[in-house]
Amino acid sequence: MKRFRITIEYDGTFFVGWQRQENGLGVQEVLEDAIEKLSGQRAHIQCAGRTDAGVHALAQVAHFDLTLDWTPEKIRGGLNHHIGSHQISILAAKEVNCNFNARFDAIQRSYLYLITNRRAPLALKKGRSWWIPVELDVFKMEKAARSLIGKHDFSTFRASYCQARSSIKTLDHIDVKRNGDDIEITLMARSFLHHQVRNIVGTLRLVGEGKWTLQDFRIALKAKDRTKGGQTAPASGLYLVSVNYN
Amino acid sequence: MKRFRITIEYDGTFFVGWQRQENGLGVQEVLEDAIEKLSGQRAHIQCAGRTDAGVHALAQVAHFDLTLDWTPEKIRGGLNHHIGSHQISILAAKEVNCNFNARFDAIQRSYLYLITNRRAPLALKKGRSWWIPVELDVFKMEKAARSLIGKHDFSTFRASYCQARSSIKTLDHIDVKRNGDDIEITLMARSFLHHQVRNIVGTLRLVGEGKWTLQDFRIALKAKDRTKGGQTAPASGLYLVSVNYN
Repeated sequence: MKRFRITIEYDGTFFVGWQRQENGLGVQEVLEDAIEKLSGQRAHIQCAGRTDAGVHALAQVAHFDLTLDWTPEKIRGGLNHHIGSHQISILAAKEVNCNFNARFDAIQRSYLYLITNRRAPLALKKGRSWWIPVELDVFKMEKAARSLIGKHDFSTFRASYCQARSSIKTLDHIDVKRNGDDIEITLMARSFLHHQVRNIVGTLRLVGEGKWTLQDFRIALKAKDRTKGGQTAPASGLYLVSVNYN
Repeated sequence: MKRFRITIEYDGTFFVGWQRQENGLGVQEVLEDAIEKLSGQRAHIQCAGRTDAGVHALAQVAHFDLTLDWTPEKIRGGLNHHIGSHQISILAAKEVNCNFNARFDAIQRSYLYLITNRRAPLALKKGRSWWIPVELDVFKMEKAARSLIGKHDFSTFRASYCQARSSIKTLDHIDVKRNGDDIEITLMARSFLHHQVRNIVGTLRLVGEGKWTLQDFRIALKAKDRTKGGQTAPASGLYLVSVNYN
């Protein structure tokens, strides 16, 4: 048996999310079907970060096993062939130790959340960014964001149906930068709660709009109560950027 | 009568090009319909650069007339409302002198051609870039490109059905830069022949692949013969970036 690790880019617009589901096509399903078409074997593929419907990935990581003596290069090329016209691309494949686990061995995940802050609606970035026409104060958002760095109980930013055992997480990094009309929010942590990034961004928006002070934001974090946070930002602006391993 | 100048972003994927056509939806048609819904008047809209099917615009410029005393702000907001879910966005509107002509007064047009040069197929950039899996030598492409700067007979890079009176054009600027997996080719000129950018890019590819020498490229230009040039690069990688006026 060989274990393969693959790196995957996808446009989340066209999928119900990573996971196989009844109500539409998941990225996992497309990949498992492609593996079967290529190899004749039905593999179970496990990823580092199960993205929701509409969320994109620049470099998702996943692993699966095959009882075939194929090279990673054959896996990469063959999967891309069988993925066909789906907007999913295998960027890299390599053989890894059979103990490697894409989900549990990850030591850091990086996400980007993209806001387009301009009066005009989106055309080229539709489905790829969150359009906010009201002017946002990036400096204030950056200040509020910084108060999240470190170990906290992130219950305020946790989806009610999140299945993680603990709501205590350590946020390694967050920054908020303006790049023309775009506002790029970058976050890094070993792991995130369900909707954590989108709930943080939805709450930072309140600070950027001037509806909330920095103090309001800190009080919301300390409340450890989802109902005290802002809205869940839309999936379309979220990108899984990278996953790091030892 | 008031003349309005508007700046427009669009995703060319969804349109048969700028012009109104029988075989599908043109950007012009969406805009003229939106103007009519907004104002009750049927205006003719003229643009700076009529893009082909699949070609994108970051900032197309166009003008039209209305016999209404409306502010540009009302035009901008109202058009965006009536454009609805089409991937077209009015970035700006202003009132201009009734002599202003978006097409004939333009003194410079800038285009970007985007190539993604990597083994893996496109996922997030599908329809937004030309995927070339063979490694390209950007340094050689840049050298060849530079030989196009200045006044030349560009017949080698001119579509057979181009309706321009003369094939002599002056290219003000061209550069070829690598940015990660992407190769960005930027061109500026007062005006371009039909397919000129895409035919230049298709020919530069031959140099980048090593199939042609710099000398071959220069001979092709001097041949003034379309059959001596390379392929027409696909529309999906082409962006009208900006149009300048005095």
